[in-house]
Amino acid sequence: DPSLKVLTLNSNRKLAEEIAEKIGIELSVCSVSRFSDGEVQINIEESIRGCDTFVIQSTSAPANEHIMELLIMIDALKRASAKTINVVLPYYGYARQDRKARAREPITAKLVANLLETAGATRVISLDLHATQIQGFFDIPVDQLVGVPLLSDYFKEKQMEDLVIVSPDHGGVVRARKMADRLKAPIAIIDKRRPKPNVAEVMNIVGNVDGKTCIIIDDIIDTAGTITLAANALIESGAKEVYACCTHAVLSGPAIERIDNSKIKELVITNSIPLSEDKMSPKIKQLSVAPLIAKAIIHVHEERSVSQLFD
Amino acid sequence: DPSLKVLTLNSNRKLAEEIAEKIGIELSVCSVSRFSDGEVQINIEESIRGCDTFVIQSTSAPANEHIMELLIMIDALKRASAKTINVVLPYYGYARQDRKARAREPITAKLVANLLETAGATRVISLDLHATQIQGFFDIPVDQLVGVPLLSDYFKEKQMEDLVIVSPDHGGVVRARKMADRLKAPIAIIDKRRPKPNVAEVMNIVGNVDGKTCIIIDDIIDTAGTITLAANALIESGAKEVYACCTHAVLSGPAIERIDNSKIKELVITNSIPLSEDKMSPKIKQLSVAPLIAKAIIHVHEERSVSQLFD
Ligand SMILES: Nc1ncnc2c1ncn2[C@@H]1O[C@H](COP(=O)(O)O)[C@@H](O)[C@H]1O
Ligand SMILES: Nc1ncnc2c1ncn2[C@@H]1O[C@H](COP(=O)(O)O)[C@@H](O)[C@H]1O
Repeated sequence: DPSLKVLTLNSNRKLAEEIAEKIGIELSVCSVSRFSDGEVQINIEESIRGCDTFVIQSTSAPANEHIMELLIMIDALKRASAKTINVVLPYYGYARQDRKARAREPITAKLVANLLETAGATRVISLDLHATQIQGFFDIPVDQLVGVPLLSDYFKEKQMEDLVIVSPDHGGVVRARKMADRLKAPIAIIDKRRPKPNVAEVMNIVGNVDGKTCIIIDDIIDTAGTITLAANALIESGAKEVYACCTHAVLSGPAIERIDNSKIKELVITNSIPLSEDKMSPKIKQLSVAPLIAKAIIHVHEERSVSQLFD
Repeated sequence: DPSLKVLTLNSNRKLAEEIAEKIGIELSVCSVSRFSDGEVQINIEESIRGCDTFVIQSTSAPANEHIMELLIMIDALKRASAKTINVVLPYYGYARQDRKARAREPITAKLVANLLETAGATRVISLDLHATQIQGFFDIPVDQLVGVPLLSDYFKEKQMEDLVIVSPDHGGVVRARKMADRLKAPIAIIDKRRPKPNVAEVMNIVGNVDGKTCIIIDDIIDTAGTITLAANALIESGAKEVYACCTHAVLSGPAIERIDNSKIKELVITNSIPLSEDKMSPKIKQLSVAPLIAKAIIHVHEERSVSQLFD
């Protein structure tokens, strides 16, 4: 179908190639390079006039570089008369800055939404937004894909027994519940509490994990502090073994060291953020979201509902 | 005056401090740091409610980082109820991407204008915009300061004789004319021409430079290719000595090496872009635009015309 164009920027080229392959097309030819002073230079090398365009870019680290590349590409597509500009954000950077937690803080997640619209995006396809409210930051359609089925299916194939799905905090219970339904397992919740200011947090476990195989599920694992402490607390409470999984493997700072030194047996992640050389660990298993995103792109292009994908 | 707040981001802290000193106030306290994953974290540490705020930030390299810092700061100021948000851009990055020179190119200079307005900027103060048309990319007031007086005064003090002011290309003649008026000197123009495709450019000199002291003036010096070739062509045409000057010293890639090895006797620049350690050269003389910007800020705050500054 010549009116469907998939383009990639620099954050996630391998995933983009996989997506194009699944769809059965070639990525559109375009160069995304830098001028001598580091400014982004984009050249789209084929006509995209009247086409449905899909730009694949995670706004993962370096987030600012990746956001600017994306905005400039959207501008170029708009001026080249693309019919639609669909932004595929496997990982939505700045999603955690989604509210004013303190006075005079920015709400960068909303700013990024405004910037994408201003540049000319006509639709956003994202995956496990840190807060579903981010959909409402946009005045254009937002499709949200979910990672739970992919992660659940991986564990289902392992045919593990005596499972319990663990949410590392109260904000993640809905996600844990969804995975538990798919794996027909009960849930447990890590109940963090700080007894007094400046006293270390206590990790209580709500639910029975004694003798069980635990799977902790989160949306983002960044410095891996929460998840590794949770794993250790679960083992101390009698858990037999602890797996962890997440959609977005930010893995910054001490993350890899913490995971390697933790009680976590295996960490299952997706490729919404590419795993750089320095983040490889024998404990990490990466699953691909390419089939899911390829399906979403085809549905959008054919004007079919994306929510159907989760039926 | 407690209703005037000057804030700085990371691109040009030294200049911002100088500006605040000239105005006679302290920079507003705010921290601009990074989360573990590199995302920008901004905390404004004092109330700016109802204030005229001025944010100093050149969008020089790394341009994308500096643009995002600026947009996030504007968002924070807007949500903190600033009365006005005046963006002071001593150097406006991406200014050279101001038109579609080829099919399917972005117009990033216009995109950046849209982004600044979307974030919430209410006024822009800039210096020697690469193209004056960029003012028209905005729907908010834009004050454009000019560097010619500052650069001219420096050479005037040297009391040099037999001067000729040289424009390195046809686009810069108006600027050269302005400097020539101030120094009461004639002008010359470097007339680049490519006789055939893929044949080296020929540098013709329009005007008399024989036995003269030449001052080449440009707005931006980036890789310094044009300016160093021009200097050599002037010497070959009998010029006694060659000075060069510009407002924005981008100086990327081979610039410093080229300047050091060229016939240029001295290169006079401003601090619209900070001169990093690796760009120091004994040939470079830096002038400060802090007094000019400080005056502009006071004029804007007092609701006086900024164009008065050039009378
Ligand atoms: N990139 C980031 N890394 C770490 N913390 C962040 C980041 N962005 C925002 N935050 C903070 O994370 C908190 C929100 O996280 P959460 O409670 O998980 O939604 C807020 O206090 C934010 O200021
Ligand atoms: N950062 C940059 N470095 C070098 N060239 C650029 C940069 N940004 C844009 N350009 C190109 O410079 C040309 C315009 O420069 P000028 O003729 O000096 O206005 C256009 O062809 C642009 O594509």
